[in-house]
Amino acid sequence: MVGKSPTRVDAYAKVTGTARYTDDLCPPNALIAKIVRSTIANGKVLSIDVGEALKIKGVKKVITCFEVPDIYFGTAGHPWSNDPAHQDVADRKLLNQRVRIYGDEVAVVIAEDEISAIQGVKAVKVEYEEYPAITTISQAMDENATQLHEKFPNNILAHSNNLLGEKNYQQTVDEQDGLITCEGEYGTQTVQHCHIETVVCYSYMEGDRIVIVSSTQIPHIIRRITSQALGINAGKIKVVKPYVGGGFGNKQDALYEPLCGYITSVMGGRTVKIELSREEVFACTRVRHAVDFNLKIAAKPDGTIVARKFECFSNQGGYASHSHAIAGNAAAGYRQLYREEKTLESDYYTIYSNIATGGAMRGYGIPQVSFAMESQMDDLALKLGIDPIELRLKNCMQLGYKDPLNGIQCYSNGIKECIEKGMAHINWKEKRELYKNQTGNTRRGVGMSLFSYKTGVHPISLETSAVRVTLVQDGSVMVAVGATEIGQGSDTVFTQMAAETLGMTLDKVQVISTQDTDVSPFDTGSYASRQTYISGTALKKACEQLKKKILERVTFNLCCELYELEIKDNIIYQNNKQALTLGELAMDSYYSTENSEQLSVELTNHFKDNTYAFGVCFAEIEVDIPLGKIEVINIINVHDSGVLINPQLAEGQVHGGMSMGLGYALSERLIYSKAGKPLNDNLLDYKLQTSMDTPELNVDFVETVDPSGPYGNKALGEPPAI
Amino acid sequence: MVGKSPTRVDAYAKVTGTARYTDDLCPPNALIAKIVRSTIANGKVLSIDVGEALKIKGVKKVITCFEVPDIYFGTAGHPWSNDPAHQDVADRKLLNQRVRIYGDEVAVVIAEDEISAIQGVKAVKVEYEEYPAITTISQAMDENATQLHEKFPNNILAHSNNLLGEKNYQQTVDEQDGLITCEGEYGTQTVQHCHIETVVCYSYMEGDRIVIVSSTQIPHIIRRITSQALGINAGKIKVVKPYVGGGFGNKQDALYEPLCGYITSVMGGRTVKIELSREEVFACTRVRHAVDFNLKIAAKPDGTIVARKFECFSNQGGYASHSHAIAGNAAAGYRQLYREEKTLESDYYTIYSNIATGGAMRGYGIPQVSFAMESQMDDLALKLGIDPIELRLKNCMQLGYKDPLNGIQCYSNGIKECIEKGMAHINWKEKRELYKNQTGNTRRGVGMSLFSYKTGVHPISLETSAVRVTLVQDGSVMVAVGATEIGQGSDTVFTQMAAETLGMTLDKVQVISTQDTDVSPFDTGSYASRQTYISGTALKKACEQLKKKILERVTFNLCCELYELEIKDNIIYQNNKQALTLGELAMDSYYSTENSEQLSVELTNHFKDNTYAFGVCFAEIEVDIPLGKIEVINIINVHDSGVLINPQLAEGQVHGGMSMGLGYALSERLIYSKAGKPLNDNLLDYKLQTSMDTPELNVDFVETVDPSGPYGNKALGEPPAI
Repeated sequence: MVGKSPTRVDAYAKVTGTARYTDDLCPPNALIAKIVRSTIANGKVLSIDVGEALKIKGVKKVITCFEVPDIYFGTAGHPWSNDPAHQDVADRKLLNQRVRIYGDEVAVVIAEDEISAIQGVKAVKVEYEEYPAITTISQAMDENATQLHEKFPNNILAHSNNLLGEKNYQQTVDEQDGLITCEGEYGTQTVQHCHIETVVCYSYMEGDRIVIVSSTQIPHIIRRITSQALGINAGKIKVVKPYVGGGFGNKQDALYEPLCGYITSVMGGRTVKIELSREEVFACTRVRHAVDFNLKIAAKPDGTIVARKFECFSNQGGYASHSHAIAGNAAAGYRQLYREEKTLESDYYTIYSNIATGGAMRGYGIPQVSFAMESQMDDLALKLGIDPIELRLKNCMQLGYKDPLNGIQCYSNGIKECIEKGMAHINWKEKRELYKNQTGNTRRGVGMSLFSYKTGVHPISLETSAVRVTLVQDGSVMVAVGATEIGQGSDTVFTQMAAETLGMTLDKVQVISTQDTDVSPFDTGSYASRQTYISGTALKKACEQLKKKILERVTFNLCCELYELEIKDNIIYQNNKQALTLGELAMDSYYSTENSEQLSVELTNHFKDNTYAFGVCFAEIEVDIPLGKIEVINIINVHDSGVLINPQLAEGQVHGGMSMGLGYALSERLIYSKAGKPLNDNLLDYKLQTSMDTPELNVDFVETVDPSGPYGNKALGEPPAI
Repeated sequence: MVGKSPTRVDAYAKVTGTARYTDDLCPPNALIAKIVRSTIANGKVLSIDVGEALKIKGVKKVITCFEVPDIYFGTAGHPWSNDPAHQDVADRKLLNQRVRIYGDEVAVVIAEDEISAIQGVKAVKVEYEEYPAITTISQAMDENATQLHEKFPNNILAHSNNLLGEKNYQQTVDEQDGLITCEGEYGTQTVQHCHIETVVCYSYMEGDRIVIVSSTQIPHIIRRITSQALGINAGKIKVVKPYVGGGFGNKQDALYEPLCGYITSVMGGRTVKIELSREEVFACTRVRHAVDFNLKIAAKPDGTIVARKFECFSNQGGYASHSHAIAGNAAAGYRQLYREEKTLESDYYTIYSNIATGGAMRGYGIPQVSFAMESQMDDLALKLGIDPIELRLKNCMQLGYKDPLNGIQCYSNGIKECIEKGMAHINWKEKRELYKNQTGNTRRGVGMSLFSYKTGVHPISLETSAVRVTLVQDGSVMVAVGATEIGQGSDTVFTQMAAETLGMTLDKVQVISTQDTDVSPFDTGSYASRQTYISGTALKKACEQLKKKILERVTFNLCCELYELEIKDNIIYQNNKQALTLGELAMDSYYSTENSEQLSVELTNHFKDNTYAFGVCFAEIEVDIPLGKIEVINIINVHDSGVLINPQLAEGQVHGGMSMGLGYALSERLIYSKAGKPLNDNLLDYKLQTSMDTPELNVDFVETVDPSGPYGNKALGEPPAI
């Protein structure tokens, strides 16, 4: 079952409309909550007049920033850490008097219907004290800048540095003769995830418990964060995740779930819905951090890298969210893909500003650093007069590499084969020769870049996943995972994994797609390209244990030994002869008057390893130099993501990621006015790649077998976007 | 925690309206299905004309009995048996061409709204071939009667007989001199459960799976029956049980769930609701079997019973449902409560007729036989000139008794103490003396009766229960049971049991009240007074194992031994000194970077025992002899149900049961015309006891400690209705 491409298990439900998303499930009599958003980017709410709003028929209540609990909380969808030094920064309340972004939440209008709620929002009068907006790193770090958060002078949310090697970069360069050096500044812009389903959740109470239904990647984390934000016990909160129409990291954050849960508790338990418009999603949820890099590199004339210096400034926007983890991941990505003989000096900052809060986004800092690092490698190759592929191969990560800081090892490495496939597809040598001496305004060229991505978050953070597998009366299994299907296909690959391990056909495996924190086993959710690798390992172990339980029951019934038995295509064989079906065994286990048992395994797998996925992108483009217009003539991604569980889904992942990467490279940018107001926060003005903009996307794979992955697999979710 | 009376865990939700019942959850755009019901009680559908119905705007489809799958299925909420000899009789299809009751389902109209559906039902034209209606046992067994089901000649669904002793009743009486004999016919009428929430379910599809949300006592059984009725795999069906507003056995049957599931599959997965009117519930769901008894008894002059003969005829109505199990339970009840020196001859029939189908109803045959048996004891006492209490005490079940046929033992017996309490309350001796020589039309009297009830269904049927208990981050536990809260208070007593066993406070235990067959552990549901006894034992074991898991983790963390540790009020003590809270331990277990684990236990307990609960009812009444009008002056139930988990809830159970018993004794009866049409199928004409009719209900308990019950407890759900 692993390595085949059956149809997605949710295809039929999604195509026929029986797959119900959050808004489909919300009862139509729900109260509608609309946020009163600040019309300044930096300042303070002095007063709020809700009198006119409350006169509107249909408006039930207005809650302002002066009334919410005085509790600061963090929103990042990270596993909690019991070590205070590793806990996320808690820097916001449910509604904030201190305004830090344009569109900040200062009050919320709760009404019987959407129109009344919108009218209510317009009728609320807010008086501000306004400060100059900070949109750039340099503005934020200026000594005269407003301090946005009390505990963070100069708006520096975090600053890290470390030195690998005995001497720093400058000393190494100074002491060694004949080095060729290369320096550059590489900037990346703010972009947004643009998931199809906007941000939506609703909440209601059952007795003294708050139920939150949300389009989220991380239901178990949402429960924990809501518990912290509201100051109530986790057991009094239940979070449900229905089908999700994309998240890409934006929904790896507590967005409006805590506020929604709070509102229902104020409204006597009535159902309350918060659904954001596309404009609100752009301006007020999360974005990919804009990161500015200053990179230095020194190499011998033969291309051997001797020393590098990495410096970056990550624009965090108004609130911490995933904060310094992005810059940290960028620093790690820079450190890992290439090695140097002597010195790597790293220095990285995460800086508060008044633009939209930077959160998780597919690639998590690596798209930014890859642009900078790979540009630097090209710059160096040009300066050395070496073919950029040769330079990369000479210095890139080798099998057996172990990161000196976090210990992540390279267990499988298909870089070389990926490059070979990419070169062949793009006709690299011929095209480089052909395009060498062009003239005129319109010229063509071929280029390439490498990328690597780790799988999951160990050892930076906790990797734990629980799974429950239960045999049903008809010999099928129900698979309950805390891991979340958000459109990427995880339910399908889990189905394949369970069928593979249990000797069953795919139609006999049912993965429960809706997570409910009351009953779904604990798993931190969908992010870090961790589902097939981390949750897949837990699932594999659970299925192995269930298979053993099933066969042990058969040994009892048939008076035979375990080694005589095998399951294939839902049939149990004894010494290769058909003994009974799984359905017959299941009926016996449920209804035996001798020894009835629901055969089930629930286990947690604490995963303490990691590995690197790799890939290359080759592109041929045509540039209209005066216009700066770029046309992609040919493009291919070749990925080493280990063994592919479902090649067709894998290709789909790569298509989506390449589209996202093309937008990042060519057209997308969230633009801010000097006052900090987003200027293109809609899908007309923000130039997301459409099918009309997208060239033919070519995909190929090199299937290494990674020994740390449950079926030889490793990360595939994020690498395509790099 | 056990033995105290905390407030019901669902009290707040139910009082504030945040407890959502099936109809509350049904989306308002659901299709409405209304049944076209036969207007004859016995006959055959010749043709159905749906032309006019389909012309009605809003009517989407009409499905007739000629179109449904050709599959016969049984509806009784019994655990399945792998032994065909013990499987329920499968005698109906989703819609039936052969009509067997007035109101039988012959077609169903599916419409966009209720009014269109009702109009559609009226517009459907059905042509019948009609046969004489059979409403009584004698009509049914008449050799010229129509045969209602193919495989059952003379309409005898089942007939059993057995003889305890070497000779039959007549032989024993003939051979022994000086015996006093007493014979009598005792009839019981048809009554209905009258649960507040009528029968309602809705269904929709998710991909290729059918989801059924139903007000049922038995979600896991509903899944199995629906799978059989529709001929699809159990894994393709999910059944959800929300809060339930009473069932009393009527919802221990598959009522409209299979049909509802079928309709959604025909309607492309759209949500379809079937909600019955009160009239439909009366006429077309289930009723308490009317049973006619012919009893004979022979005793020595000192009151020692020598021989008995038990004969009964149970009126099954149109379809099998729980069928012969009712008469069988009545026979067992007769056999068990009293013993005889020599002979017990039993002969019992279950007979099809054209009245409403007999199903499970609180007491399950025992209210019927108790009326007959206790009347017989009074008749005998009168004939012998012995005080009826003395006669009963001389012959009733003793500690250590073991049923000769099914082996159920008497482990605890508070009959004598119950009688003493009842006598004291009613002032038995003085009142018997006082009322001895009354004259006139209005006279008073005191009477009493015993009752006993077994606990659960072992060994007649399977008793199995699975439970899952999971430690949450805040140190609370989530308890997932397949057992169902249907208003009786089981969630509250489960909460107490878990808190007691785990050393926790009640607010830290959350029992999940909604069962969902995808995720709720397997348990056959709420019936047979089995929840606190059977499911309670599974819960106790699961909590004991979870406690061990928790403390083992503590031994690892604190480097200590298990015996040093104890949990009390959510705090873990080491050698009686506070070590850490359960919340701290939980946070460590979830988020430890050394050994993260969600601490959870899921287990099945196959329960292979049973025990008897007992009780007495004493009443003082005034009878207007010419009018036949009875006024209850004083009444008390005294129960031996072992240790009471929650005395206040126990008292509530007894109040409800006494009210039901008073109605059965004094005012309730479902009346049929000769044509088999119910004449008082509504709450105006059917004389259900109201608060205005009900005297002060006195309740007392004798708390024996039953060694087979998880906390010394035994049956309490049904005995009060006897």
